[in-house]
Amino acid sequence: MAHHDLAQPVRIGLVGLGTVGSGVVRILVDSADHITRHAGRPIEVAAAVVRDPAKERDCTLPAIPISTDIGTISQDPSITLAALLVGGLEPARSMMVELLESGKDVVTANKALLAEHGPELFELARRLGRSIAFEAAVAGGIPIVAAIGECLAANRIESIRGILNGTSNFILTRMEEDGSSYAEALALAQAKGFAEADPSMDVDGTDATQKLAILSHLAFGVWVPWKEIPRTGIDTVDIDLIRYAAELGYRIRLVAVARRTDGRLAMRVAPALVKIGTPLAETRGAYNAVSIVGDAVGRMFFHGLGAGQMPTASAVVADIIDTVVGRTAITFRTTGLLSADTPAAKLAGVDASERHFLRIVVTDRPGVLARITGILGDHGISIASVIQHDPIDAGDATTVPPDVALVIMTHSCPSGAVHEALLSIDRCDVVRGKSVCLGVLDE
Amino acid sequence: MAHHDLAQPVRIGLVGLGTVGSGVVRILVDSADHITRHAGRPIEVAAAVVRDPAKERDCTLPAIPISTDIGTISQDPSITLAALLVGGLEPARSMMVELLESGKDVVTANKALLAEHGPELFELARRLGRSIAFEAAVAGGIPIVAAIGECLAANRIESIRGILNGTSNFILTRMEEDGSSYAEALALAQAKGFAEADPSMDVDGTDATQKLAILSHLAFGVWVPWKEIPRTGIDTVDIDLIRYAAELGYRIRLVAVARRTDGRLAMRVAPALVKIGTPLAETRGAYNAVSIVGDAVGRMFFHGLGAGQMPTASAVVADIIDTVVGRTAITFRTTGLLSADTPAAKLAGVDASERHFLRIVVTDRPGVLARITGILGDHGISIASVIQHDPIDAGDATTVPPDVALVIMTHSCPSGAVHEALLSIDRCDVVRGKSVCLGVLDE
Repeated sequence: MAHHDLAQPVRIGLVGLGTVGSGVVRILVDSADHITRHAGRPIEVAAAVVRDPAKERDCTLPAIPISTDIGTISQDPSITLAALLVGGLEPARSMMVELLESGKDVVTANKALLAEHGPELFELARRLGRSIAFEAAVAGGIPIVAAIGECLAANRIESIRGILNGTSNFILTRMEEDGSSYAEALALAQAKGFAEADPSMDVDGTDATQKLAILSHLAFGVWVPWKEIPRTGIDTVDIDLIRYAAELGYRIRLVAVARRTDGRLAMRVAPALVKIGTPLAETRGAYNAVSIVGDAVGRMFFHGLGAGQMPTASAVVADIIDTVVGRTAITFRTTGLLSADTPAAKLAGVDASERHFLRIVVTDRPGVLARITGILGDHGISIASVIQHDPIDAGDATTVPPDVALVIMTHSCPSGAVHEALLSIDRCDVVRGKSVCLGVLDE
Repeated sequence: MAHHDLAQPVRIGLVGLGTVGSGVVRILVDSADHITRHAGRPIEVAAAVVRDPAKERDCTLPAIPISTDIGTISQDPSITLAALLVGGLEPARSMMVELLESGKDVVTANKALLAEHGPELFELARRLGRSIAFEAAVAGGIPIVAAIGECLAANRIESIRGILNGTSNFILTRMEEDGSSYAEALALAQAKGFAEADPSMDVDGTDATQKLAILSHLAFGVWVPWKEIPRTGIDTVDIDLIRYAAELGYRIRLVAVARRTDGRLAMRVAPALVKIGTPLAETRGAYNAVSIVGDAVGRMFFHGLGAGQMPTASAVVADIIDTVVGRTAITFRTTGLLSADTPAAKLAGVDASERHFLRIVVTDRPGVLARITGILGDHGISIASVIQHDPIDAGDATTVPPDVALVIMTHSCPSGAVHEALLSIDRCDVVRGKSVCLGVLDE
C-alpha cells in the first residue's frame, strides 16, 4: 500500500465520532502537513458512520457523508482503512468483521472487543491478509503496545505491572489528596468527564483486566481469557484504608500485574499498597503507568495520559500512519498475534510470596489481639507490625465496648495462607464485618 | 527482504565485539527461539570484525570467522545486515560507508558518529536504498527513537527534556546520597565500569549533547550541529551546590533540553536543579529518563537503563529484528531522516524565562548582601529567597573576615539578564571566584 500512488491521498473511514473519533478528526485536519510528512501521503477522512448523524460533534468535520450504515465505508472500494472508534461488543464486533471481510485494514481503541473476541478477529484478519492495529486500546497515549511488541522484542519479558485505568486512579488520588470519600471522589470524576455515567467497568477492575489480558498476550505469547484473571476493584477501598496505608509510607493504587513464575503466569488486578517514592505511587490523577522487566533491558517505566480525547487520538493516528506506510502489516504478520497455535496461559494459583496489609475490625476486649495474631501464627504468617486504630468513620454509631481497627503488616508469606487465616479470623465473634487484605509492592 | 526465503536464516555481520557486541551475541544465541519468532526467521552471526582477534570476549562465540578486515563482512554477499558496534569517528565512519556501499543495511549504537556525520551517512544510505537504524545510540534500552519517530508521529513535539548520560547521573547520585566529592564519585564510577578511563566526553556533556542533537532531529525535523548547542558538564558541580540545592528541595541533574519557542529551538545541556518528587529528580544512578510533551499526547515520560551491556544490546537486537522484517526500511524512507531538504535549526538565543539558582561566594563584610542584591535588582531580577551559608569545604583555608556563600533563588527572569548581572557581580572586589548559575526546573 505504501508504494502505490504516493501522491494520492489515502481515504479512510471513521466508525464513531464520539470523544476519540472527534479527536482523530482534529489531528488529521489541524496537523495535516505534519501527518502527510510522516505517512508519505495525505490522509483524508472520506466517510463517517455514527449512531445519530444529527448529533453535534466536538470537531469541525470535513464535508463527508455521515451515515448510520457501515456499508458506506465497507462498500466503498476507495477506502482502504477504517478506524473503529466505538465501545462495547456489539455492534462493534459485527462491524469489524464486515470491515475486514470487505478488505479494509482496521485500527481500533476498543479493548473490550479485543479482550473478548481477539482470537476470532485476529484470525479472521490474518486469513484475509488484513491487519488490526490497537495501540489506543491500552494505556491511551503511552505507546506500550509498540514497546512490548516491537521495541523490546529482543527480551524475554519477566513481568508487567501497571496502572491501566485512569478513572480508578483519579478517584484514588482524590481520596488520598482531598480526604474525599469514595462516593465524593467518584462524583467528581463523573463531573470532570473522567468517569462514565455507569462507571462499573472502571471501578470494578474490568477495564484494567481486559487491558492486562491484551498486554500479556503481547508480552508472553499466550492467550488469557480476561475473566480468568483474579480481579478486585477499587469499590472495596475506603478512606480509612488510604489513611492507614499513608501512615506506613504507602499509597493505594489499582495495580495490574502479570509475572512469570515456574512456567506459569501469576496475574491479578487489585488495589495494592505501593511505597511512596516509587514510580507507581507517584502516578496521579488520570495518568497511567506501566513498568516492564525484560531479561536484557532490565526495568523500563512508561508514564503518560492513559485516557482522554487527544492522548487516545494520538495513539489512533499513529496506528493509522503505521498502517498506511505498511509497518502494521509487517508487525501483524511477524508477531503471530493470536495465531491458531497461541498456547492458552497456565495461570499460577496462589502468589508465591508477598507482604500483606490487613485491616481487621474487632470489638475492643482484652485478649483480642492475642487471639487474632495467634490465628495468623497458626498459619505460619509472621507479623512485621501491628497498629491499633480508633475507628475513624464511626460517626454516631459507637458501640460499647468500642470497635477498633487492627492494621497489620505481614512479612513476606503466601497469599493462600493469609486468605485461609482470614477465613478463620472472620468467623471469630469479636471480628466485625469482612477483613481487608491488600498486597504490598515495595519497589 | 522479509518476504524472501522465510525458512533461511538471515546472516549478519558484527563490527566490534566489545561490551555491546558481546551482549548482542549473547541475546542472539541465548534467546534464539524467541528472536526467530519475532523476526520470522533465524538470525545468525556470520562474521565478526574486531581490532584484536586474540582478545577474550564476554560471550560464547559461535564458530565464525573473526578478522580485522571489514571486507570479510562487506564483501560477503550472503550477509545483508551489519551491526556497527564500535565507538568514535574513525574508522567507524569509513566502515559504515563501505558497508552501505556494499549493499548492507546498518544498525549502530554510535551516537558520536551520527551526531557528527549523520547528514552525509543518512543521505548515502538513502541514495543506495539502504537503511541505518540507531535506537541504541540514544538512551540505551529506552525505545525513545521509535517513540518519537513512530509512536508519537501524530504529535507536534513541543519539548524534550532528558537525562541522557548515565555516567554523569551515577556521579551526581553518589555525591548526593553518599556526600562523596566529585573526584571520589568519578573514581567509583570508573571502578564500577560506568565511566571510561577517559570520562571527559561523559562529564563535560558532549555525550548528552550528541544524543540531544539526534533526538531533536527526530522530534523537530531540523538538523542541529551538536557543537552549536550550549553545553556545560557536571565537572562544574561541587558537593556544596548539591547540599544547598537539597536544602531548597531540589536535586542536581545533567539535563538536556530542547523546546520550541517562537519558531526557534531553545536547546541546552547543563546541570540544573530539579524539584524532588518530579520524575527527573527520581532518576538515579545509571538510569536515563526522557520526558516529551506532544500537542496531542501531553506529557510522556520514559525511564530505563541508559547504558550497560544488555540494555544497549536489547536496543541493537530490536533494530536488527526491525531491519530483518522490513520495518526499518519503511521508517527510514517515510521519516525523511536528514534528507537534502532538512532545514537547519534556528537556535533561540537566551532562554526566555526561568527561575535561577545562584551561588556567589563573598567576603563577609557589612553591606555585601545589599550590594549583590542591588546589582540583581538593577538588572530587573527579582529574588525569591537568599540563604547565607558558612562555607562547607573551607577546610583550613579560613580567611578573616571569612568567606560566605550566598545562595539565591530568583523568580522567573531571562537568563540573559542573570548572566549580565553575574558579570557585574563577579567584578566586585568582595566576590571570590566565579559565581555559579543553574536553571531551575519545577515540574
